[in-house]
Parts: sequence; structure tokens; C-alpha cells
Amino acid sequence: MCHPDGGSGNEVSRVSEIRQNIATKEWVIIATERAQRPEDFAEPAREPTHTRPAHLDTCPLCAGNEHQSQGEVLRLDGPDGLWRVRVVSNKFPALAPQGGAKWLEEGFLRRVHGFGFHEVLVESPHHNDTLALLSIAEVARVLAAFREVGRLHAAHPAIRQIVPFKNHGAPAGSSLEHPHGQLMSLPIVPAAIRTRLETAQRYYDESGRCVYCDMVREETRSGLRMLAENEHFAAFIPFAAFSPFHTWIVPKIHRPQFLQVTDQELDSLAEVLRDVLARMYRGLGDPPYNAIIRMAPQTYERVHWFHWYLSLVPRTSKQAGFELGSGMYINTTLPEDSAAFLRAVAL
Amino acid sequence: MCHPDGGSGNEVSRVSEIRQNIATKEWVIIATERAQRPEDFAEPAREPTHTRPAHLDTCPLCAGNEHQSQGEVLRLDGPDGLWRVRVVSNKFPALAPQGGAKWLEEGFLRRVHGFGFHEVLVESPHHNDTLALLSIAEVARVLAAFREVGRLHAAHPAIRQIVPFKNHGAPAGSSLEHPHGQLMSLPIVPAAIRTRLETAQRYYDESGRCVYCDMVREETRSGLRMLAENEHFAAFIPFAAFSPFHTWIVPKIHRPQFLQVTDQELDSLAEVLRDVLARMYRGLGDPPYNAIIRMAPQTYERVHWFHWYLSLVPRTSKQAGFELGSGMYINTTLPEDSAAFLRAVAL
Repeated sequence: MCHPDGGSGNEVSRVSEIRQNIATKEWVIIATERAQRPEDFAEPAREPTHTRPAHLDTCPLCAGNEHQSQGEVLRLDGPDGLWRVRVVSNKFPALAPQGGAKWLEEGFLRRVHGFGFHEVLVESPHHNDTLALLSIAEVARVLAAFREVGRLHAAHPAIRQIVPFKNHGAPAGSSLEHPHGQLMSLPIVPAAIRTRLETAQRYYDESGRCVYCDMVREETRSGLRMLAENEHFAAFIPFAAFSPFHTWIVPKIHRPQFLQVTDQELDSLAEVLRDVLARMYRGLGDPPYNAIIRMAPQTYERVHWFHWYLSLVPRTSKQAGFELGSGMYINTTLPEDSAAFLRAVAL
Repeated sequence: MCHPDGGSGNEVSRVSEIRQNIATKEWVIIATERAQRPEDFAEPAREPTHTRPAHLDTCPLCAGNEHQSQGEVLRLDGPDGLWRVRVVSNKFPALAPQGGAKWLEEGFLRRVHGFGFHEVLVESPHHNDTLALLSIAEVARVLAAFREVGRLHAAHPAIRQIVPFKNHGAPAGSSLEHPHGQLMSLPIVPAAIRTRLETAQRYYDESGRCVYCDMVREETRSGLRMLAENEHFAAFIPFAAFSPFHTWIVPKIHRPQFLQVTDQELDSLAEVLRDVLARMYRGLGDPPYNAIIRMAPQTYERVHWFHWYLSLVPRTSKQAGFELGSGMYINTTLPEDSAAFLRAVAL
């Protein structure tokens, strides 16, 4: 018969397994009955980002078109005095920094005024640059801009949670070609982040250790799912990865918030991030992806039990009814096989 | 400037708000700065499902092609002795009912053998039928099949959670045109469902009432977000709907599990569900959607504080980095406006 709604080939018949992520307690079905090999996801025919023109008159993020954007929040220049990274206001923000974070209760209904920050981080003056092909120093500058603007937002007493992220490619939700990231800073703590805090705290209650620190130790020890590593960071495909190339880049030094990273650590992060992005770019043909920096809410900067990390999600599959209904994912590739494939990519 | 990664027009400049769902404590940004009117989502040009041929030789779910499917689990016949609804095994299931739900711990790593049920519910013998255009009696038969097969799965002592769902249209993750739903029955309780249980239990601790019962009362009282209602069910767009036409159909009678509905209640549910689906079909041009029945895990059949419901999610927007990073959604339409639009659709 059919195999409704998912999967492609069925070369190998292996037994599926359901794995749990020790840090989040989330389960994922590793459906090897629908097995896809990592190389099935490579799409070398896709037009890579870097073949675009370097400049477009109509792109509001290109160098020379600065008048098309507004509200420059931050600008990092190169030695020639020209900008390399800019952070600007979003003209149609989901949240706006006016009016404060008023909490409104009307009987049963609870809402907060749409206070917050929503800004755009331009990663390069050039339309055809892409993070995966920038130098390590350039990637470090992009990360530094995320940190600096995050610190600006954090200084506002009504901000509770900062969410830096990046959508690369239209299938990942990006509507502008020019390389850019975004920062959204919220006056509330999202329920999903609250749940992760509670889960990590329970682990600490039982063990006296941070579960993310433990996870880094275990993954570097086993090596089975490792992609890259240096003094300060480890990049690996989690044991319970929710999609084939879902990757975590976790600091080896315990810090609850990304905003706390030092310059030296930023350089280290840039090295590992660029390595992983380059493997995906070459091995999977410049895939669309989402990158998210997950960190503790404001006022949780000093807790012993929660740890920031960067999550990279190449878009190889989509959510449907089962995922929406259960909050679980089905991953059709063994995390160990995906990691081995990316490790073998020639850079 | 640009409005990176989301939104379309900007006719009205209103203040955004952040709303909380009282039952799940999840927040959603209602981003009316990016305001889209409900009619922006109508796509009358899309080819509707019912213009397909009634029979396809190559479709394994069409009447006459029963030999192409395998493992008939349930069959409901019409008065002519021909089948109307069938439930069959999935040839490439994500989970399989062999081997039991072995729990495997290897130091830090936890996994469960991929035990479970994953079955396909064929909603009609005809390739070009669609739930939105079936009679109420036919919809009731489909719902009855979901209930019957759910009860079969529930009888297995290792099953902990049953997830009935339906993906309609390719953008919603469906790979077969023939109208069908699916059932996935799991040997574990997904973390997201666990969190919802805890959240509902806390509300009960404070109030002595089921939060879902309270929500039905409040929505039917205010009427602002109501779509349809009868003796046993209320259909409304939740106050904190995470996308423009995200709809809940909630039983007025407190029951933790869908498997507990009576035949009379199934008829009532069919009436309301068909009404809402027909509004979406005509008002939005047969949109792709996911439908999910959310219910309590096994062994929670009698709790006073949790309540099953049906969630309908037309696919009008997609998840990107912000949604993945925060677990929150951005909805560009006011739930009250969406409800008014669907109420006005001529049936």
C-alpha cells in the first residue's frame, strides 16, 4: 500500500525506536522503517545563495540603499570605515517598543500590550554573501552584533525573554534574499521555555548537575553524533534529534545566557558554527534552515541548572497533523548516520 | 523598509497584543501591525478537491483497489453492503505493533522500542469526496470509525496515548489525494501533552473547575469568536488562536477522552464539524488543513480537570525561526475578525 503522509523509500527494514531528549524530556520517533539515508537529502541541483548578484538596487538591505531602511540600532564597521553588519528596525514589526508592557485582564481573558523589540540584523553589505561562506572573523562579527543588540534589549526592565534567530531560504520562512537575522525581545516568557526551565531544574534537583553540561560531556565522550568541537563549544546531532540534520551547538562553559559570552568565546563559536554551516552548505546543497539561540529568560542569568545553546534546523521535512497533535516529531534518519555523513563532507 | 519574513499588507496600523490561552498558558502575538484581513486568505482560484475523478486505478484507497492495501482493521458498510469507511494498516508505519514497548536505558540515553499502531482511515470509497461536502451521517460514520479503532488500540495495555489526526492537502503534509485520516497510538506520553495535563491540573487546583469547561462557557456567552454550536459541542476560534482560522471544537459535556463519546454525541459532533469545514471550504477555497483530536492519555479517563477537543488548523502561514525558538506563534489576524468572516459564509 501507500505510505500516507511521509517517508520516501524503504530500502532497509529496521525497527523504529522512540528516543527521549534528556534535557527537554521530549520524545521523537526515529522511523527507520521509512529509512532515508542522509545522502537522500542532498540537493546539489538547487541554486546556491552565492550565485546571486552582489548588489540589487531594489534590496533595502544592500550597501548603498541604507535610505530604504530606518532606525539604525547598531553598526559595526570594517577597517575601511564601511559597515559590515547593521541592525535596523523592522518596518512592520510584530512588537513595538512604545507604550510599555501593560498587562490587561478582562475576566477570563489575559493579554499584554504588544510591547517589545523586533529588529533585523543585516549580516553583510553584499546581497550574495551567506553565513556558511563568510570568514570566521566575519561570522564572529555577526554573532557580536546579536550579543550587543541583545544586551541593549536586556537593559529594558520590561523585557523578559530574548529570541535571536535566522531564517535562511524561502522554505524556512525568509522573504528577503539578502543575508539577515532577526531579534525578537518579549515582555513575557513563552510557555515552551517555561517548561524547559522546569525540566532542567528537576534534573538538577536529582543530580546537582546541569543537564546541558552533562549532555556535552556525554556527546564529546561517545563521539557518535559529533560534528565539530573546539575549546569552548561542541556541535552535535542530538540523540533524539527531531529531524535528520537538527544540530545543537552547546557551550562547554556553563552559562544560562548567550549575552554572557566573552569575545574569545564568540570567536570559538564562530569557528564551530561556520564549520557546521559549511558542511551543510556543501553536503546538502545550501539547504534552507532556521537557526535559533535558546537562552534563559531575564533574571535567570545566574542559575546553575539552565544553559544557552544554538539550535540549527535544516528544513528537510515538514510538520503535519501528528506533529501538531502530539508535539512529537518523526525523524526518518538515524542521528548517528546523519552525523557521520556531515563529518565526511570535504570542506 | 522591508518586512522580513512574514506579513503582507499594512493597511491599518493597530497596536499588536500578546494573548494567553487560559487552558494551555501558551502566548501568541496578534500582530495587527502586519494586519491581514480574513478575506486575504481566500483562494477561490485553487482547484477544489471535489473536481478530481471519482475513481483512480492507481489509488490504493479507492473502492475496487482493496487488494492494493493490507491489514483491514475495521470496515463500516452502507445498507447496500458496500463499504463506506475502512481502516487499514499503513504499509510503512512509523510504529509497529510487534515486540512490545521495551524500555531501554543505556547510561545517559533513554529509548523505547518503536512499538505502537499507525493506521490509515479511508473516509470514503470515492477519490473525489471530501469531509467538508459529505452528509452529516457520513461524517458521523468517519468519526465513529476513529472512535472504534481508538478503542481497539486502547485495549492494548502498553498503549499510553492515542493521536487521531488528518492531513488535508499537500501543504498540510498529505501525500495521498484520496480522503483519509490516520491514527497513531504511542507507548509513551509526549512531553507537550504532559505539560498540558499539568497546566490544566493547576487550574483545577485553584478553582475546582475544568478549564476547558470554563472556556466553552465563556466563549458561548461572549459569542465574539463562535462559529457553530449545538446541544453537545461548541466551535470557536480561541481568544489566543495561533493562526488566522485555528479552530477548537470542544464538547460541552466534560469528558477527558474522545473514546468516551456516545453515538448521539458523535452525531452532534458531525453536525458542528461539517458546518465549520464547509465554511472553510467555501470561504477560504478548500484550504489545506490539519485536524487533530487531542485527548487525555490512557489511565486519565476519569480526571475532573482535563477535557478532549478537536483542533482544526487551516494552513495559512508557516513556522520559522521565531516559532521554533520560542514555541510561540505570530497570528496576523484578529480571532474576532476571522470568526466574523467564517460566520458570514453562505452555506
